[in-house]
Amino acid sequence: MKLILLIDILGTIAFAISGVLTAINKRLDPFGILIIAFVAAIGGGTLRDILIGANVAWMRDLTYVYVIFGSTIFTVVFRKRLEYIRRSLLLFDTIGITFYTIVGVEKGIAAGFEPIICIALGTITACFGGVIRDILCNEIPIIFRKEIYATACILGASAYFLLLNTTIPLDFIVIISGSVIFIVRLLAVYFNLSLPTIYRKDELE
Amino acid sequence: MKLILLIDILGTIAFAISGVLTAINKRLDPFGILIIAFVAAIGGGTLRDILIGANVAWMRDLTYVYVIFGSTIFTVVFRKRLEYIRRSLLLFDTIGITFYTIVGVEKGIAAGFEPIICIALGTITACFGGVIRDILCNEIPIIFRKEIYATACILGASAYFLLLNTTIPLDFIVIISGSVIFIVRLLAVYFNLSLPTIYRKDELE
Amino acid sequence: MKLILLIDILGTIAFAISGVLTAINKRLDPFGILIIAFVAAIGGGTLRDILIGANVAWMRDLTYVYVIFGSTIFTVVFRKRLEYIRRSLLLFDTIGITFYTIVGVEKGIAAGFEPIICIALGTITACFGGVIRDILCNEIPIIFRKEIYATACILGASAYFLLLNTTIPLDFIVIISGSVIFIVRLLAVYFNLSLPTIYRKDELE
Repeated sequence: MKLILLIDILGTIAFAISGVLTAINKRLDPFGILIIAFVAAIGGGTLRDILIGANVAWMRDLTYVYVIFGSTIFTVVFRKRLEYIRRSLLLFDTIGITFYTIVGVEKGIAAGFEPIICIALGTITACFGGVIRDILCNEIPIIFRKEIYATACILGASAYFLLLNTTIPLDFIVIISGSVIFIVRLLAVYFNLSLPTIYRKDELE
Repeated sequence: MKLILLIDILGTIAFAISGVLTAINKRLDPFGILIIAFVAAIGGGTLRDILIGANVAWMRDLTYVYVIFGSTIFTVVFRKRLEYIRRSLLLFDTIGITFYTIVGVEKGIAAGFEPIICIALGTITACFGGVIRDILCNEIPIIFRKEIYATACILGASAYFLLLNTTIPLDFIVIISGSVIFIVRLLAVYFNLSLPTIYRKDELE
Repeated sequence: MKLILLIDILGTIAFAISGVLTAINKRLDPFGILIIAFVAAIGGGTLRDILIGANVAWMRDLTYVYVIFGSTIFTVVFRKRLEYIRRSLLLFDTIGITFYTIVGVEKGIAAGFEPIICIALGTITACFGGVIRDILCNEIPIIFRKEIYATACILGASAYFLLLNTTIPLDFIVIISGSVIFIVRLLAVYFNLSLPTIYRKDELE
């Protein structure tokens, strides 16, 4: 239970940073940056909690709000150094989906949903904040660009349920399925992988 | 009660097929097709259930998930034959709004809402999935194109409440009000009908 | 309690009128105008109620529905005269955010949330209906144009909580913090104020 809280906070930091970097890229004003940081960090979890019918997490626990405020100020101040780390936005986004998928899956299990619904909840938690972030910044959502993104979340979440039937301790299941998401996503970007096409040549002309 | 479950499933199939056809039209990858099929099929009902404060139907009953998976695979495999039926997308979309309007109205009545709110819930159930489908596929939502679409749902839902005050059995009320939606929508498309304008000539220059 | 109901209705009227004026500007058909009026008037409050986990206000109290219908018909009929009042859209929008911020803050307090969450709820109530209104009308949301808009709501909501620690009666707190929102927003438009930039010159080239 403490581990899930920790990875929830780490996901919040990663997505808040990714939101700030996207907003700075678009040269938004301070308020716009803060809004995009919030939306990126809490959008997915909020939709998940509404779908589950649970209390929306950040509204009852101010930790999230403080963490997002802190991450936003930190990123704005040190943005030059973060830019030195190339692909830093990609990295923080990947860390975000890794942590958030696990959080979504575990909240789904706690609420008593079937595995396939929990996998959907994990994917929604991970991907939806980024979708709103990109729409508000007038970018085509990263999830719809031709890359393996949500697919990484689905694979990791599926691994989680496969391992749940073994004797592997829960903490290791979390680490293994998280690694699946992180590695699949980075490999997909690095080797420019995409899903196989269903279209015949004559359909694409 | 069994009739409403049946028409809910038929609406789900119709909207999943309409989502797949729209997504294939946009040459999306397999994951994109599945997402659009889901969103088209469950978007309207999800918003309705959230507004009512009820459990989201597809999260507790996997029937919907299986039906959408099945419809998606079926439509992808047989898409060539479906294309032979011209206007097939239009047809499945019209079947979808017909069934979903009735489902939305009956769920509203079951939750104890006033007729006007039930009519709104029916229209939301019918139209909202299509709106998200079109926005994600970067089309102008069909509901905002200058045609009678939501208006057909509103007319059918209103007919439902008018007939409820008569001695006509419920099953016939469902069939009659469903027919109103289906026929009004098809006539509107066929004769290219639209709502009367409120603008004077000099306002449109 | 009666005061908050009154300002809720006044906000509904102001936002319905702002919705109709935006929709007429886009030459939408009668159904489109009604939808935009509804979305503008109830969008923010609906998101607030869903986030709080409360019943959605307009679904249980038809007053809102009648008020929006009435405001829509009134505005469509008298739109020529409203156009004589220049900046009428701006004025009604500003009246709307003033009233809705207060309503959102007070509903947050009633539900037992921390001040910072109540300020967020007030800002969401005030701004979200306008965001959907603008997106559906294919305008860049007014909140993201470079002006002080949500900032006015945040300042007014913060003033509310500062004054709550004094001996000033609640009705005066409402009037003072509402005036803060109204005046800050109008001054920002009049003097074309925006938030200070965080970017150095070389970043903006």
